[in-house]
Formats: sequence, structure tokens, C-alpha cells
Amino acid sequence: MSEILVVGSLAYDSIKTPSGSAPRALGGSANYFSLAASLFSKVRVVGVVGDDYSSTDRELLQKRGVDLSGMIVQPGKTFHWEGAYEGDMNEAITLKTELNVFETFDPVLPAHYKDSKFVFLANISPDLQGKVLDQCEKPLLVGMDTMNFWISSKLDDLKKTLKRVDIALINEGEAMMLTGAGNAIEAAPRVCELGPKALVIKRGEYGFVLYTKDEGFFILPAFPITKVIDPTGAGDTFAGAFFGYLASLGRAPTTADLKQACVRGTVVASFTIQDFSVKALADVTPAKVEDRYKSYRQVVHLA
Amino acid sequence: MSEILVVGSLAYDSIKTPSGSAPRALGGSANYFSLAASLFSKVRVVGVVGDDYSSTDRELLQKRGVDLSGMIVQPGKTFHWEGAYEGDMNEAITLKTELNVFETFDPVLPAHYKDSKFVFLANISPDLQGKVLDQCEKPLLVGMDTMNFWISSKLDDLKKTLKRVDIALINEGEAMMLTGAGNAIEAAPRVCELGPKALVIKRGEYGFVLYTKDEGFFILPAFPITKVIDPTGAGDTFAGAFFGYLASLGRAPTTADLKQACVRGTVVASFTIQDFSVKALADVTPAKVEDRYKSYRQVVHLA
Repeated sequence: MSEILVVGSLAYDSIKTPSGSAPRALGGSANYFSLAASLFSKVRVVGVVGDDYSSTDRELLQKRGVDLSGMIVQPGKTFHWEGAYEGDMNEAITLKTELNVFETFDPVLPAHYKDSKFVFLANISPDLQGKVLDQCEKPLLVGMDTMNFWISSKLDDLKKTLKRVDIALINEGEAMMLTGAGNAIEAAPRVCELGPKALVIKRGEYGFVLYTKDEGFFILPAFPITKVIDPTGAGDTFAGAFFGYLASLGRAPTTADLKQACVRGTVVASFTIQDFSVKALADVTPAKVEDRYKSYRQVVHLA
Repeated sequence: MSEILVVGSLAYDSIKTPSGSAPRALGGSANYFSLAASLFSKVRVVGVVGDDYSSTDRELLQKRGVDLSGMIVQPGKTFHWEGAYEGDMNEAITLKTELNVFETFDPVLPAHYKDSKFVFLANISPDLQGKVLDQCEKPLLVGMDTMNFWISSKLDDLKKTLKRVDIALINEGEAMMLTGAGNAIEAAPRVCELGPKALVIKRGEYGFVLYTKDEGFFILPAFPITKVIDPTGAGDTFAGAFFGYLASLGRAPTTADLKQACVRGTVVASFTIQDFSVKALADVTPAKVEDRYKSYRQVVHLA
């Protein structure tokens, strides 16, 4: 098993969905990622929080064995995102983004993080993603996420980061926006032309598309969930379980490994959406993942 | 092998997509269905056309061995639908619907059709679907499609037809509209409570959801297609290949048969969308289906 370094946001989210609302609940890509990845591997977090960040929220990760020595506390408030889902549960409407302490975030890796073999650059500014990568010594696998905001505002920096990663995990709309393609299938090889050897396109309730330069497409649906309470963090959960699974193997992944990692991603993400914030995800255990993994195999099994 | 009876529209479509346009091209659910189903089985068509219906279009089905003795020619014009796709290739915008001879269509089965073992009621008024079913002697498997228009305007008739069929094949939006469910997974068992033992929810580029009362969910994606030229008829093609495959087995289908039938559905539909109207579908051969079926298995294969 190898250790995973993740850099991303540690946040409070205020979320409204057709099922209700959760004001100032724990969120942020690094939190979802770490909770999911730590089901499989050791995780090291780089991020910043304000002095309002609660010790309970910190302990949630610590109980999963997550190393928080790279989590900096700064005077001020923690990053706050306010969003809503209406009708289309696959897309959040952003109502407010308060960067707060995140605005001046300048990631510095603790010395013992630098040998991390698995590195995930969650959705933050692409130049900060680059800065983190500069401090990593010899990673075996580097992955990244991004969002529409960076595609439109920092495309050049984003392309520089894309050249330096092995695998990108982005959502369908982002893949189309980044390449000008009309659908995920057309977009996938074009994203890989920008650098990554492999790409995962996250499709929300429709699952994922894995594309590798060597073996082409691997596509499967999401685990069927009757009642989606709050889709926030599903993509970060996917990435966390995906990386956690790969790091647990401790080797440079084969395409077969990437396929299995995608399935872990969609399986663990299916828990996240069953409650607000990280509530359901925090209760997941490796045994629950294994059970749902078996059910998932039945759902997609073509004799 | 058993014979399939299909009732549905025989039409001319005028279609605009981002790739171009096709004015007054062959369309209609019964045409797409028959071209797809005849790749696997014998097909008998019930429908009506105007005196403008071309002999070339008639011959297209005849060359595939389709029995057209139930295709009535009436004075007047053939059903004409005008539609467009913009951005979202999964949903057509209807610009014009000219029922023409279809307005007074009253399906009467030729005597030799009445013993058809496989019956598919494509998207026509639910009372006409019932009339066709009244004339069938002892079908082994009855399937149906419908559309939002009938769900909102003839819900009672629709529910009567649903009670009489074994399997429904509808799209995702229709499944949600019919049941008030928030997604396909929630909708599926509710549709089955209305009558059918099995339900296929067609999800366009995202594939399909099969739900059976006995074995629950089977979900897979669509075959990956880089360039979608015209999605018109993909759902009818799916239904045609699905029924064609089942009829080729000639028995009351098991759940395993339904799964294989779904895969044939998505595979053959993936040809339809690669050109306007029935152009690409008309060129499909059983060998091409087999090739793409093998590729599809690779795409969804989880070791």
C-alpha cells in the first residue's frame, strides 16, 4: 500500500436540494476525497481552513487515519460554498462562493509528504496544482480534477498541469467544454491529446467513461440509487475511492486496475448521495463497499 | 423463430440536427422497428401511408422480408413530422406534426397476422394499441412504447394498455412523467406496478435500464459513438432489435434473454444515429451487428 497526497478545498457548504437543506455542513473536495480514499489507503491532506473550522470535522478524518499535518489553520473563515439542486440532480447551481482563507492559499508540503507515490490534485487553481506537483519528488501516479471556472479563466495554466498528470478525472460538461466536442465519446481522446494517458469522465447518475490511449473505452453506469438526497461531493468521492483503490495496490496501475478503480469510485459515490454533506460517506466501511460492489457486479453483469 | 407483429407510424420526417438536415426522409416508429427487427426475425407491419408513399421506401422493408400486407394505402398524404435537435442530442424539439392519413387510422389485422407470437405496440394512441391487441389470438410476448403526449392526454387508456402488456419500452423522461418519480431508478418499479412484468427505460447516449419484477435492475451504457448525426428513431430501433432478438429465440423470454435483447437493442441503435433517417440502419447486416456486439462486450467488460 502506498500513501496518497491530496490537495483540495476544505469547506463548509450550504446546500438546498428537493429533499431539504443543510446549512454550513462539512464539504470541500479534499474532505470527500479523503473520506473515500481512506477506506482503502493512507491519505495525506494539503489544504487550508479558517479558525471557525470545528474540531469534530477535523477528527472525522483523523479517525480514518488521515494525516492532517498539511492542513493549515489561518485567521479568518473557512471556504464557504452555497449551492442548490433543482430538477436536474446532476448539476448544482452555485448561489455563492466565499473563498475566505482559501483566497490566499499557497500550498506548502510538509517534508514527510514529498515522497507520496500517489498524488491527486483536486479542483483548485491550476497554478496551485502545479505548485504542489513541483514539491513532489517521484510520484508513481498523478491525477487531477478541474472545473468550468478554470477552463474559461485559466486555460493556459490548466493545459500546463494537464501535460504533467497521468490521469484526469473530470465531469462530462467539463470534458466537452475543454475540447469543444459534442459528447463524452468525442471528448475523451481529445483530452488525452492534452497530456493524460487516461481519462475518467464522470457522468453523475449515468456512471463513468474510462478512456485510455492504449485500450480505448470502458463504460459503465452508476450504482442504482432510488432516492438521491444530495449529489454534492459525488465526483470527489469517486476520485477518492478511485485513487484509494489504486494506492492500495501500490503499483503503477494497469488498465485492468483502472477499470476496477472506476467501479470502486462509482460504488463509494453511491453512498455519498444518499444523505446531505459527508454524513452517509462518513458511515461507510470497507465491508459496506464490498457488499455494494458485489451487488453492482450483478447489475452490470452480461452473461 | 417466431413472427413479430408491429403496429406504429410509417412517416416522412423533416429533421434538422447540428450536422445538417434531411427533408421528407423516411421515418416513423414502424419503419425503424421493422428494419431493426428484421435483422433477427420475420416481421409483419400494420400501419397506414398516403398515396405519396414511395415504392422505394416500401421496397426497403420488402427486401428485408418484411410482410407489408397490413400496410394500408389511403388517399392523402403520409404522416409528416418535423423536428430539430439543438445542443442536447438526447431530446428532439417537435416543430410540426401533420397526422394526415394517420388521423383516421383504424388498425385492422390481416387474417394471417392474428397468430403472431410477438406483438409490439409502437408509439400510437393507447386505444389503438388496445384495438390491435384485441385482434391478436394468443401472443407469447406483448411489448409497448408510448410518449409524453399520451401520458398527458390519454392516461386512462394508457393505463388500460399497460395492464395488458408484458414489457414496456419507454424513455427516461416518460418513465418519470408517468410515475412522478425523480429518476429512472425510482420510476422503474412504479411502472411495473401499472402492469408490465418488465420495463426497459431507454436513456439515449447513456444506454438503458432493464427492470424486472423478479430480478431487479440490469443497467448498461450505450455503445460509444463519436459523432451522432441524427438520433431520430434510435428508441424504435432499440425496440426492434430487442423484439427481433427475442422472437429469434422463439420462446417466452427468461430474464437472461431480456438482458441479451437489451444489448442487441443498444448495439443496433448505435448504427441508426450515425446517419440521417434510416440510411445507416438500412445498411446494417447481421454480421455488422455481431461485430459491434463483440466490441460492446469489451467496452462493458469488468474482469
